[in-house]
Amino acid sequence: MTSTSKVFTKEFEQLLDLQQVRDALYFLKQDNEQTTKDQIEVTEVEAPPFNEENRAAFFKEKLAAFGLDDLKTDEEGNVYGIRKGSGSGPTVVIAAHLDTVFPAGTNVKAKVEDGIVYAPGIGDDGRGLAVLLTLLRTLEENKIETEGDIVFLADVGEEGLGDLRGMKAYFRDNTYVDGFISVEPGAPGDLIYCGVGSKRYNVTFKGKGGHSFGDFGTSSAIHAAGRAIAALADLTVPEDPKTTYNVGTIHGGTSINTIAQHAGFQLDLRSVSSEALAELEANALAMIEEAAQAEGEARQQPGSISVTTELVGDRPAGSQPKDAPIRHIALQAAEVLGIEVEREEPLSTDANVPISLGIPALTLGGGGNSGGHHTLEEFFDPTDAFYGPQRILLALLGMVGVKDGAAPLLPIRN
Amino acid sequence: MTSTSKVFTKEFEQLLDLQQVRDALYFLKQDNEQTTKDQIEVTEVEAPPFNEENRAAFFKEKLAAFGLDDLKTDEEGNVYGIRKGSGSGPTVVIAAHLDTVFPAGTNVKAKVEDGIVYAPGIGDDGRGLAVLLTLLRTLEENKIETEGDIVFLADVGEEGLGDLRGMKAYFRDNTYVDGFISVEPGAPGDLIYCGVGSKRYNVTFKGKGGHSFGDFGTSSAIHAAGRAIAALADLTVPEDPKTTYNVGTIHGGTSINTIAQHAGFQLDLRSVSSEALAELEANALAMIEEAAQAEGEARQQPGSISVTTELVGDRPAGSQPKDAPIRHIALQAAEVLGIEVEREEPLSTDANVPISLGIPALTLGGGGNSGGHHTLEEFFDPTDAFYGPQRILLALLGMVGVKDGAAPLLPIRN
Repeated sequence: MTSTSKVFTKEFEQLLDLQQVRDALYFLKQDNEQTTKDQIEVTEVEAPPFNEENRAAFFKEKLAAFGLDDLKTDEEGNVYGIRKGSGSGPTVVIAAHLDTVFPAGTNVKAKVEDGIVYAPGIGDDGRGLAVLLTLLRTLEENKIETEGDIVFLADVGEEGLGDLRGMKAYFRDNTYVDGFISVEPGAPGDLIYCGVGSKRYNVTFKGKGGHSFGDFGTSSAIHAAGRAIAALADLTVPEDPKTTYNVGTIHGGTSINTIAQHAGFQLDLRSVSSEALAELEANALAMIEEAAQAEGEARQQPGSISVTTELVGDRPAGSQPKDAPIRHIALQAAEVLGIEVEREEPLSTDANVPISLGIPALTLGGGGNSGGHHTLEEFFDPTDAFYGPQRILLALLGMVGVKDGAAPLLPIRN
Repeated sequence: MTSTSKVFTKEFEQLLDLQQVRDALYFLKQDNEQTTKDQIEVTEVEAPPFNEENRAAFFKEKLAAFGLDDLKTDEEGNVYGIRKGSGSGPTVVIAAHLDTVFPAGTNVKAKVEDGIVYAPGIGDDGRGLAVLLTLLRTLEENKIETEGDIVFLADVGEEGLGDLRGMKAYFRDNTYVDGFISVEPGAPGDLIYCGVGSKRYNVTFKGKGGHSFGDFGTSSAIHAAGRAIAALADLTVPEDPKTTYNVGTIHGGTSINTIAQHAGFQLDLRSVSSEALAELEANALAMIEEAAQAEGEARQQPGSISVTTELVGDRPAGSQPKDAPIRHIALQAAEVLGIEVEREEPLSTDANVPISLGIPALTLGGGGNSGGHHTLEEFFDPTDAFYGPQRILLALLGMVGVKDGAAPLLPIRN
C-alpha cells in the first residue's frame, strides 16, 4: 500500500523552485559513486558492539572536513557537530549509527562483484554514514544556508545489547532538539514514524535437582520453565497498538535422568505503545513468578524453585499520530521526487529514543538495494542509490527551511 | 530400615555346617587382596560403551583358567561359560558388566592412595568382574560341587544407551535359566529385587520460525515444547508401583528476537511395573502431540508445529513379590553372616531383563566401599570388601545346592 499526503504540497513545490535546491539534488546524483566509495571506506573500519571507537575517530575526521561547529566525541562515544543555520529555525538531528552486529576480528573487507558491494555492515549502517557525508557535501558545494541548525550525528550502540545507549546519552545531554532523522538501509521511500519498544529478559530457574527416579517428587527447574513458557504462550496482547512476546532461546538440565537444577530462557517483549509494553512486562514477570511457585507447590515443596529475571534490553516504545507534521514532510519529500512510500511499519531504531521523549522523529531509508543485514553475506547495490539522499535532503530542508527561500515546516518545541 | 527373613533359616544353618562352605568363606577373606588386584587389572583395560571387546577378550582369558564349559563370546559381545553341577539342580547365572560409561581415551590407570584405589570404572563394574573371579577361585580351591549349573557371565551394554543389550541378547539365546544374580558395586547387604524399567525419548519440535515482532503470530517450537513440559509436569503417576517422569534436558531457538524453528527435550519415563510404564508412555506421548497441536491452533495455524519422538532407551520393568524365594535366600545369606540388608529399592540393572521375563533375579552388592560412580573421581576402598563375595557365595550355593550337603532352594522352572 502506498502512502500519500495532501499536506505541504505548495510548500514543497516552492522548495523545488529554488535553483540551489535543484542543483543540490543534481549534485547528489553525480555524487552517487563517491558516496559508495565513502560507504566502503567506513565499512572497512571495524565497529564491533561496544567498540566503535576506531570507526568513530575515522568518521570524526571525515566530518571535520566540513567545518562543523562544536564537533566532538561525547563520553558515550557518539561523534557529532552542528551545521549552523541562520538562527531562526528548528534544530534537527540527522543520525546514522557507527556500530555493527559483528564481533571484533570479522573480515569487513569489501568485495565488489558485478557492481554489487559485499561486506558485513555495508548496508547497516555503512549506508547511513555515507548518506550523512553526501548530504554535507551537497549542502557545502551548493552553499545552502538553512534557517534551523542541523546536527550531524554518528552514534554508538544501536544494535542488540547496545540498547540505544548512544541515543539515550545524546538526548540526556542535548535537550534543544526539534526533530530527528535516523538513516538506515532501506528503500528511498521507507518512512518509519513509530518506534517498537522492547524489554528483554534472561530468565533463570534454579532448584535442588536429583536423580530422576530416586528423587522423583523433587521440583525441576526445567518443569518450572515449561510451566512459565506455556503460560506466556497463552498471553493475550493487543493487535493495535501492536504488542508481541517471544521466548527465543531455551537451555537447561545436565542429563536425561537428572532432575534439572537449572533452566533458562530469553524473553523478548515488544510494543509500539509504552503503556502496552509496561502492562505486558508486568503480566509476563508475574506469570514467570507464578510458574516457579506452581512447580514447587505441585511437588509439595513450596519455594523450592527460585527464579531470577535479568533485564538485558530496554528500548523505549513510542508512536506518533499519522497526521504528525514530520510524517507529512517526509511523505511530500518522496512524492515530489516520484518516490513511492510503501513501508511504514514500526521498527526499533535510534528514532525510538526521541519518539519516546515526544520529539518528532523518523527513520528514513538510505536508498540503494541492500540485504543480508546482520549476516556475513550482507550486500549493497548502489544503482540509483541517490534517491535515498535526495529524499532525505528535501525532508531535511523542509523541516529546517532554507534562508530567504523556504520557511521551516517543523515547529520549534518549547 | 533393615530387612530380615524367617524363611530358609534351618537350610542356611545346614549350609554353614558344611566344612567346605566354611573353608570357602575363609578363602574369600584371604583372597581379598588378590581380588583387589584383579579388580585393578580389569579396570585398566578400557571398556567404552559399545566397545567392550578388549576387556571382553582379557576377561575371557581369566575365565579360561577355571576350565568352564562352553566358554565363548557371543555375537553381542558377552563372554560366558558354565561351571557344571551334578545335573539335578537349577541353573543360575551370575553376571557382572564389562562396559563403563567412559569414552575411549579416558585415563583408566589406577592410583592407590592410603589404600584407596582411584580409577574410572573401578567400582562400576570392576568390582563385579573381580567378584566373579574370586568366587570361581574359592569354588575351585575348595572343590565345591554344586547340584545346579552356574553360568559365569561378563556382559556388555549395561550402561546408558547400551540399553541392556548384552542381557537382552543373552536371554534371547539362553532360555533354560532358573535364577540370576547381577553383581554391582554396593554394600554387601544390598539386595535389589525389583527392576526399574525405563523408556527414554528425544523429543523434537519444528516450526517455520520468523522475527519476534514482524512475524508475531507464527507458532513457536519453544512455545510448543513449553506447553508439552507444563502438561507433563502435571501428570499423575502411581506411587506404588513407583512410576516417574523427568524432562532432563532442553535446548532450542537461535536468538532472543527469533521465533524458534526448533526445540527439543529429553524425556525419561520409569516404573517398576511394565503396565504402569506403558500407560505413562502412552499418556506422555499423547500429551506431547497435543501440545504441538495446541501451539498451532492457538496461532490459528493448525499443523504448523511438527513433533518427533525418538525412542533412545528401552529397559524392561519388572517386580517380584516380597516373599519370592530368591529374595529370602539372599536375606538369609546376609543374616547368617551378620550383614544387615538396608537397601532394597528398585534399580535399573542387568537384572531388569530376567525379572521382566519372569525369571527370579537379584542385584547384589559386591562389597567394599565405593563411590563417585560415573565420574572420573570414582574410587574403591577394599577394606573388608570380602563380605560382598561371602554373602554372594552363600546366596549362590543356597540357590543351586551343594552336592551331598544342601538341597537347592531355588525351584527349577519349566
